[in-house]
Amino acid sequence: MEERVRAAIREAVNREPFARQFGIELAFLDDGRSRVEMVYDPARQDNIYGRAHGGALFGLIDEAFETAAQTDGTIAVAMNVNVTYIASPEPGSRLAAEAREVSRTKRTATYEIRLADDRGRLLAVCQALAFRTGKPIPFL
Amino acid sequence: MEERVRAAIREAVNREPFARQFGIELAFLDDGRSRVEMVYDPARQDNIYGRAHGGALFGLIDEAFETAAQTDGTIAVAMNVNVTYIASPEPGSRLAAEAREVSRTKRTATYEIRLADDRGRLLAVCQALAFRTGKPIPFL
Amino acid sequence: MEERVRAAIREAVNREPFARQFGIELAFLDDGRSRVEMVYDPARQDNIYGRAHGGALFGLIDEAFETAAQTDGTIAVAMNVNVTYIASPEPGSRLAAEAREVSRTKRTATYEIRLADDRGRLLAVCQALAFRTGKPIPFL
Amino acid sequence: MEERVRAAIREAVNREPFARQFGIELAFLDDGRSRVEMVYDPARQDNIYGRAHGGALFGLIDEAFETAAQTDGTIAVAMNVNVTYIASPEPGSRLAAEAREVSRTKRTATYEIRLADDRGRLLAVCQALAFRTGKPIPFL
Repeated sequence: MEERVRAAIREAVNREPFARQFGIELAFLDDGRSRVEMVYDPARQDNIYGRAHGGALFGLIDEAFETAAQTDGTIAVAMNVNVTYIASPEPGSRLAAEAREVSRTKRTATYEIRLADDRGRLLAVCQALAFRTGKPIPFL
Repeated sequence: MEERVRAAIREAVNREPFARQFGIELAFLDDGRSRVEMVYDPARQDNIYGRAHGGALFGLIDEAFETAAQTDGTIAVAMNVNVTYIASPEPGSRLAAEAREVSRTKRTATYEIRLADDRGRLLAVCQALAFRTGKPIPFL
Repeated sequence: MEERVRAAIREAVNREPFARQFGIELAFLDDGRSRVEMVYDPARQDNIYGRAHGGALFGLIDEAFETAAQTDGTIAVAMNVNVTYIASPEPGSRLAAEAREVSRTKRTATYEIRLADDRGRLLAVCQALAFRTGKPIPFL
Repeated sequence: MEERVRAAIREAVNREPFARQFGIELAFLDDGRSRVEMVYDPARQDNIYGRAHGGALFGLIDEAFETAAQTDGTIAVAMNVNVTYIASPEPGSRLAAEAREVSRTKRTATYEIRLADDRGRLLAVCQALAFRTGKPIPFL
């Protein structure tokens, strides 16, 4: 991918309110691929049973989707996300979500995303569909 | 539903780290049904394009799912969530997610969840599947 | 909806190879809504356990989606379908799938589809997403 | 996987009404993995636009899911299937659906399934969730 696009997305994530709220960091970005990471923090992310909230895990998954989907330098918008939860992370563990583009047509792109902890244990799998607007990323 | 279950879930949401992080409030709870609300706060919930992050919208949807799924007093665990995004909310608007149980078997339960803004505009629809453990809610 | 569009879709379903293969009939069609029916025939539709194959149930669901999505007279193409199975039908029972448009934007439309038997027992629920090409139906 | 389980599933597919209806053949089967094939026949599988019906493509995908999910010799039941359509096959082309187990817990198992034509062009991707009953396959 173009280096200026990578730099622009990286900077946009650094400034992104949602990513900052969750402590999400962009670890890797290339054509149709992304890896984002965060430390699971029970004090901010637990559900009513004292386990990681589905919304917290989804937030990291969605960040991987969002970043991978913009790597061609044009704006893509999330249309559909399907997530299957497999396991709960341990408090304090570092989580990583990796997105990979599976297909791309003129107007749509499909991604597979996996969420795992720092021991490589799979926590969730996801299939996501984006609409490709064709418009260039505005902050380039 | 039993009043002591409703009170217990309500209190659990009030204490829940994830709900507090997002300012999520439980507005309504009954058998297999829930309504949760939050104000969309761009300063904490925006994505790289200055619109509500998919993870923020999903967080509210998931809270509706989570609460509706425990209303029989036993623990249910999220297995699969499918969300379709329709529109973006306006900054500062109050969002509501309503979950409704569509079916329940011994081990599974299915929910439909809708996310709308305070003018009734539909923002996302969701289909969610829970595994029913059969164990009583621990904090009753 | 326009009567000539309804008539054209009705005739197209009557001629459709897939619908004929499964004995699917169009029972109702209106703006963004459709109801299709078939008799579950174990001799053609059973799986390896002697129950209705997921693909057979899905076929009826998809026909409801396909027909509901063309009711404005323009071609819509299936992008994503999410189905949750709830129960198995009895042999010989008449099944009905009802699709309902939940939202429509310029380029996409979302549907909820329910599959039930002739006693009203819910067998499956579905959420489906179509891409709206904007091109008129060719066989009008 | 056990050879007697593979032989039993293979024979069950040969006898399966749905598979015979569509001309589906089991090409490969191993632990948590399956590959099934069929020739796309417009005369039986086309939709109202003269392209492969979503239900026909789904039927092959579901057969891959169904067979991969029984390879440990116990009965698994489909709970949720999410399919994203990417492209339409050419008439007469030979289609293959490959399922792969992504994770397995005591009660659930998750699969990724890909549908491609005989030139390797991706037609659809799928994420599927099964409930593991723990009961042995009856026809062993």
